[in-house]
Amino acid sequence: MKGLPSVERAIAVFSRFPGIGKKSAGRMIYHILRYGEQDIEQLLQTLQALRDRVTSCKICHNLAEGDICWVCEDNRRDSSLLCVLEEPSDLMAFEKAGFFKGTYHVLGGRLNPLDDVGPEQLNFASLEQRLLKGGIKELVIATNPTVEGEATAHFVAQMASSSGCKVTRLAYGLPMGGELEYLDESTLYQALNGRREF
Amino acid sequence: MKGLPSVERAIAVFSRFPGIGKKSAGRMIYHILRYGEQDIEQLLQTLQALRDRVTSCKICHNLAEGDICWVCEDNRRDSSLLCVLEEPSDLMAFEKAGFFKGTYHVLGGRLNPLDDVGPEQLNFASLEQRLLKGGIKELVIATNPTVEGEATAHFVAQMASSSGCKVTRLAYGLPMGGELEYLDESTLYQALNGRREF
Repeated sequence: MKGLPSVERAIAVFSRFPGIGKKSAGRMIYHILRYGEQDIEQLLQTLQALRDRVTSCKICHNLAEGDICWVCEDNRRDSSLLCVLEEPSDLMAFEKAGFFKGTYHVLGGRLNPLDDVGPEQLNFASLEQRLLKGGIKELVIATNPTVEGEATAHFVAQMASSSGCKVTRLAYGLPMGGELEYLDESTLYQALNGRREF
Repeated sequence: MKGLPSVERAIAVFSRFPGIGKKSAGRMIYHILRYGEQDIEQLLQTLQALRDRVTSCKICHNLAEGDICWVCEDNRRDSSLLCVLEEPSDLMAFEKAGFFKGTYHVLGGRLNPLDDVGPEQLNFASLEQRLLKGGIKELVIATNPTVEGEATAHFVAQMASSSGCKVTRLAYGLPMGGELEYLDESTLYQALNGRREF
């Protein structure tokens, strides 16, 4: 099979997105081509806006348009409660849920020696400075429940241990709406281990 | 919930793609933002290439880079066998399969009065010219098996009736690997109607 180089290339680029296979990528590209120049212009403008406007918050490393993100700008947020996360998308999950009233610190990834991600590659220095500055009563570690996320959580906990603030982390256990029957062993183990009085 | 306008807008634009919901679009945008400028540049270049290079074949209206597409350029293709399709993506399905050695004519859509798509909006005039020019022995109608595709097929068949070429269309019936039990009634009806001697 032979196709157009520019179309094949576009499909290859789009199929590198997470969760997008070659078929979905093809559908997207043909969708763009079907509606033509207007669609392409809109996509180009959207991506240029991402490139030109989106920066990193100088305080918490969340995505921002400008120096400070909308969370750090909001003085109704409780700055004594600090939640440490891996990525801005994790922060958005919290913000969508809407119940967390503290502030955040986005590490920008997780420790992963195999991929050459050490403490220097993540936003630990600015976290240490925020801890040293004082005023933080509780540090909630909300890294992902993976091996690397765990390692990162331990690193954060150790760093915070000398600061005198309370260090907590998100509970492990049964996901709401899940069924015990289909649960993996390690989650079940964590759920049993973390059982609470009824 | 409050987010960044440029990120929210990008998610909205991406979630307009077929088969892409708000969640997948979000994952794609955060993927772009995570890897930063390099990824955005690559996407921009890819889309710019689509905009600047991809044209429509002057003969068959397939996607092309230049005046004539790779199928029409290939003189090993049987130009006496012409397959009429709705979209370039349908043509790609044939080319991927690789068994069709004839040439194509892409209509650019299907007749749909409700969406104001009449014969003038589709590539019928150039199809008529190709038929009048002669040399076509068989016209294979390969529009989609939908109400609009059927109407389009009838229109094409009527147009071709005076040209003296044989007019055929793709068979309807059981899809390979499917199960009778789960088949819809109209496909079953078509399969029975189109039964062939064993």
